Amino acid sequence: MADQYAYSGDDKRPTEIPAIRWEEPPEGPVLVLLDQTRLPAEEVELVCTDASTLVEAIRSLAVRGAPLLGIAGAYGVALAAVRGFDVDEAATALATARPTAVNLALGVRRAHSAHEAALAKGGDVRQAASAALAAARQLHREDAEASARMAEHGVTLLDELLPGGGHRILTHCNTGSLVSGGEGTAFAVALAAHRAGRLRRLWVDETRPLLQGARLTAYEAARRGMAYTLLTDNAAGSLFAAGEVDAVLIGADRITADGSVANKVGSYPLAVLARYHHVPFIVVAPVTTVDPDTPDGASIEVEQRPGHEVTEVVAPQAPVAGAAEAGGGIPVAPLGTQAYNPAFDVTPPELVTAIVTEEGVVSPVTAEALAEVCARSRRVTTG
Amino acid sequence: MADQYAYSGDDKRPTEIPAIRWEEPPEGPVLVLLDQTRLPAEEVELVCTDASTLVEAIRSLAVRGAPLLGIAGAYGVALAAVRGFDVDEAATALATARPTAVNLALGVRRAHSAHEAALAKGGDVRQAASAALAAARQLHREDAEASARMAEHGVTLLDELLPGGGHRILTHCNTGSLVSGGEGTAFAVALAAHRAGRLRRLWVDETRPLLQGARLTAYEAARRGMAYTLLTDNAAGSLFAAGEVDAVLIGADRITADGSVANKVGSYPLAVLARYHHVPFIVVAPVTTVDPDTPDGASIEVEQRPGHEVTEVVAPQAPVAGAAEAGGGIPVAPLGTQAYNPAFDVTPPELVTAIVTEEGVVSPVTAEALAEVCARSRRVTTG
Repeated sequence: MADQYAYSGDDKRPTEIPAIRWEEPPEGPVLVLLDQTRLPAEEVELVCTDASTLVEAIRSLAVRGAPLLGIAGAYGVALAAVRGFDVDEAATALATARPTAVNLALGVRRAHSAHEAALAKGGDVRQAASAALAAARQLHREDAEASARMAEHGVTLLDELLPGGGHRILTHCNTGSLVSGGEGTAFAVALAAHRAGRLRRLWVDETRPLLQGARLTAYEAARRGMAYTLLTDNAAGSLFAAGEVDAVLIGADRITADGSVANKVGSYPLAVLARYHHVPFIVVAPVTTVDPDTPDGASIEVEQRPGHEVTEVVAPQAPVAGAAEAGGGIPVAPLGTQAYNPAFDVTPPELVTAIVTEEGVVSPVTAEALAEVCARSRRVTTG
Repeated sequence: MADQYAYSGDDKRPTEIPAIRWEEPPEGPVLVLLDQTRLPAEEVELVCTDASTLVEAIRSLAVRGAPLLGIAGAYGVALAAVRGFDVDEAATALATARPTAVNLALGVRRAHSAHEAALAKGGDVRQAASAALAAARQLHREDAEASARMAEHGVTLLDELLPGGGHRILTHCNTGSLVSGGEGTAFAVALAAHRAGRLRRLWVDETRPLLQGARLTAYEAARRGMAYTLLTDNAAGSLFAAGEVDAVLIGADRITADGSVANKVGSYPLAVLARYHHVPFIVVAPVTTVDPDTPDGASIEVEQRPGHEVTEVVAPQAPVAGAAEAGGGIPVAPLGTQAYNPAFDVTPPELVTAIVTEEGVVSPVTAEALAEVCARSRRVTTG
């Protein structure tokens, strides 16, 4: 039973956890994804040869996490272009594969614009495809660099807020290498603190219903050799009450112009708990997560996911005989039980201590300060 | 797949859900429990012929919930006495089968005292056993009556606090017929509101790690024909933020002299959310739950349960082939993952809007008001 989790030759495996890569075998280019629905039991790769396979992978959460979705979307457009599919159709399907994550649409648009610009300049189909791929690769590289800079800013902020060191960090969902072209967002900060010898404990919320914390963050923390402890989302309150949390670090799926943060359901209750206990609540996200066109939290469309994610317990990943069906769960609630299953919740800016971006830290969180950081990013990009 | 939950002839089944009963077949008396770990998939009864079987049933949560544990403990002592086992030994084992629930120890003591008193008065072993059984039956009856009175007081309180009617109630864990000699505590109030046509929606927290909400409260709500919706514990914050919760109703495993409430882990975060959103947070519990010997929340020993409840997902109840082992779960976290798994958390009195007991409502919650209600109960008992 336990054997399925016993990695053989752990030390020989690369420390890197590549969640996505572009490959060019003789039979044509492909996009290779680490299937995150199979972790931590198995490291299985999904090979996408067209955009619709990728759309399916996005919907099934085989590939997930705001920054990584942007990279995947860009590569998806490139894939359609290089393989001669209808690029406009692929771009539309990819951009709308999940409604909330703004990075996905941005990544798609970036590769799509590069493709269109090349055509408009009189390039042929092949040159336009190359331009789309170059745009995707550039986005991938930028994201890795952004991770590194967020980690740097985040660790500095932690040291300022918590001068004693020995940080005990609570995190939610998964925000590491599995969501990023680099080492992630909130997780990258915790990892940098770990490397600097200043992480005492990483508290990992299991993150129901899909258990990304238990499956993915625990997997990353274990592979990185960090001191981590898993808990049900319910138990976070007890940790706060016992004074065992020095800071909360989470990612974001979308940040609106006023600094409202849409993130995995369960983030908002942590923000309320953090406020009640005077604990810093820190959001780590690249500036691409900021959506200046959405004015505030009330304007965010929150994705409602299927009820069976709640009425059934996910029997994940490993091919466990007896699970309801492939990818399905084991029913726990009575037949016909209705479920309320929002994918995200929204934390208002007044509950957010700081937003850490690759361009610097926004604190206190105001529309003006956020706009200023975003402008800094545009200056860098266009300068 | 779904068939295992499709009750055949639902309407022909009694509405009553007897969680415990004493039977006297020719081969000797037994205590029959509805095995709550198998619900809602199967209604399976456990037959206890001695105290150690019952201790095991208590530890495995086959029988659970503060008031029902008291009744079970009392019957357990009676069972040992009637069947000629060592009553002192049985009483000790039963009273300490789970550390937090004060009702268990109280129930045990009540039957044990009756047994000792009968012996002290010169009764023989058989008379002493009868006295223990009579004490258990009396406790069972009192608990059913207490449920009915709590429901009455609770509905009155709801109508006062929420004059508009159409209550949308959020509840956590399971507090209905499956924890009680009657219809329960918090659930009994929601049920009474339902019968009075004033329950618009019962929001049911799934209650990780053991999913008593998804499995048991959903089962009871479905059997009672209530309008209910299941959610992950994480999603409660979104409901509060959307103004979809009019009141929180929870039970209690122990209430200390100052009004601190130990209850299923996840209760405290709801109390903080309720306070932040100005929503009443109401605790429903019989006065036997009040432990005047424990001064405050800090003095409560919180049971830490095994980590595998978190690192594995419970593959419950139904004999699903492929589950790790009988009663075991499916591993989700990497091998070696440590978990923090407190069974309970503690809500301080300042976050509790009211405590509803069978003797009346305590609001605001102060040590004096609580002591007064407990004294009222003693007057009734001794009067």
